[in-house]
Amino acid sequence: MRFRLVVAYLGTPFAGWQRQPGRRTVQAELEEAIARMTAGPLPSCVAAGRTDAGVHAAGQVVHFDLPGAIHLPALVRALNDHLPDEIRVRSARVAPAGFDARRSARAKLYVYRAAFSRPRLPWSRLRTATVPPLAEPDALRAALALLPGRRDMSSFSVPDPETGSTWRTLYRVGVTFGRAGLTVAFTGDAFLRYQVRRMVGAALEVGWRRRSLEAFRDLVEVPRPGARVWTAPARGLTLERVHYRAVRDRETPPAPEGDPAQGGAGAAS
Amino acid sequence: MRFRLVVAYLGTPFAGWQRQPGRRTVQAELEEAIARMTAGPLPSCVAAGRTDAGVHAAGQVVHFDLPGAIHLPALVRALNDHLPDEIRVRSARVAPAGFDARRSARAKLYVYRAAFSRPRLPWSRLRTATVPPLAEPDALRAALALLPGRRDMSSFSVPDPETGSTWRTLYRVGVTFGRAGLTVAFTGDAFLRYQVRRMVGAALEVGWRRRSLEAFRDLVEVPRPGARVWTAPARGLTLERVHYRAVRDRETPPAPEGDPAQGGAGAAS
Repeated sequence: MRFRLVVAYLGTPFAGWQRQPGRRTVQAELEEAIARMTAGPLPSCVAAGRTDAGVHAAGQVVHFDLPGAIHLPALVRALNDHLPDEIRVRSARVAPAGFDARRSARAKLYVYRAAFSRPRLPWSRLRTATVPPLAEPDALRAALALLPGRRDMSSFSVPDPETGSTWRTLYRVGVTFGRAGLTVAFTGDAFLRYQVRRMVGAALEVGWRRRSLEAFRDLVEVPRPGARVWTAPARGLTLERVHYRAVRDRETPPAPEGDPAQGGAGAAS
Repeated sequence: MRFRLVVAYLGTPFAGWQRQPGRRTVQAELEEAIARMTAGPLPSCVAAGRTDAGVHAAGQVVHFDLPGAIHLPALVRALNDHLPDEIRVRSARVAPAGFDARRSARAKLYVYRAAFSRPRLPWSRLRTATVPPLAEPDALRAALALLPGRRDMSSFSVPDPETGSTWRTLYRVGVTFGRAGLTVAFTGDAFLRYQVRRMVGAALEVGWRRRSLEAFRDLVEVPRPGARVWTAPARGLTLERVHYRAVRDRETPPAPEGDPAQGGAGAAS
């Protein structure tokens, strides 16, 4: 029987989603928690998005198979009892026939949060990067507006022999400015490795006048794998949601974390 | 010239204060940040309290020596630029003659935060442990009230050949209950290793009816190094403040973090 979990995690203490020998990863923690719960062999967990080291998730989706049926609320409770507090299972259900957390995903929402000043206490703004203030916020806005569409996104990734096509569709980019920072939301069918952090980094470079809007347009229009683009820090990035149906146009934007964009204190998603 | 810093850190990603080969520690990060700032040799940083792995600090005090004078606001800015966001230098000043961050300390305030239910999102309550609900809150309160005084505290530590005297003075213990958890504040002249977490653990055992108040009193009155006592998790403990003058009786209690004791959302200290 295949189970589907929605999982949230704070990326700070983990070397990313994917299991790596000798490193603490979300996949390893989750697989070991399932094995402890069932007192069975280590299952294989597949995630919708293989988040990198330090990247957070509010709504990662994961599937795994177990031989028997399990009472779902008990499954959530037992897994959370076996997991560290940095990883929380938010919900569990039985997956429909043919469901694959990665391959069935139709779209993902990633949100990048950045603040223009360092946090005064280190436990505030754990999901927010600190970046220099912008000289030209309108130029950053204009750069981000160039991104949506279906195209070869390899300027915003790094050369990777395992990647097949580097074409991806970015449906929407929304930016919210506030007194203290900004929040950028990206909805797309899928994303290349580092794509969101490099899109944010290159757009910030435009906002700092370190890159012209024309040079940014060139990155968007001419694929240059491994182009010299600043990769914004992992701590600002959260995988907010994975969609398994076609994305609609009207969708509630995610709430900001702490101060950065709107001065709110709510947790996103 | 000797400098005195007030430092805050989130303990989650660190193997404690003290430098250890191959581990990420607060001391190593701070010493390396100072060396990068001065482009000089690695200084030796001394902290008021050598917090264990996972323990946080809001007001750790640290001293170190540098050959020359430095503009203090620039020192704070430069160090924060070189430090990860999990460590923040809150203030810097020139230390008075003879000052030693550890030996000059007159008292410390440690606060333990515990909640009775798991956080729903992993970035809430990073400085709060999750513990089972109490069967007898009044018994826990009575147990904590037995602790203040000057005595051999070795029941609440582990045998350690490096420790000299195991006598310590606990001036005050304050507990605040809330809907969702509790906060316990300990002010003492100094603390043995694990002392706060084992005092909290043993008092919680009384609150869960796993240990009688009489057995708790026995631990307090008869020193038993390494006694079987639950050590409450590191994530609930924060070194809030170090005092270098005699402690007064009236002092603002620290604010709770997130939900645990009072439903507030403020950061402590």
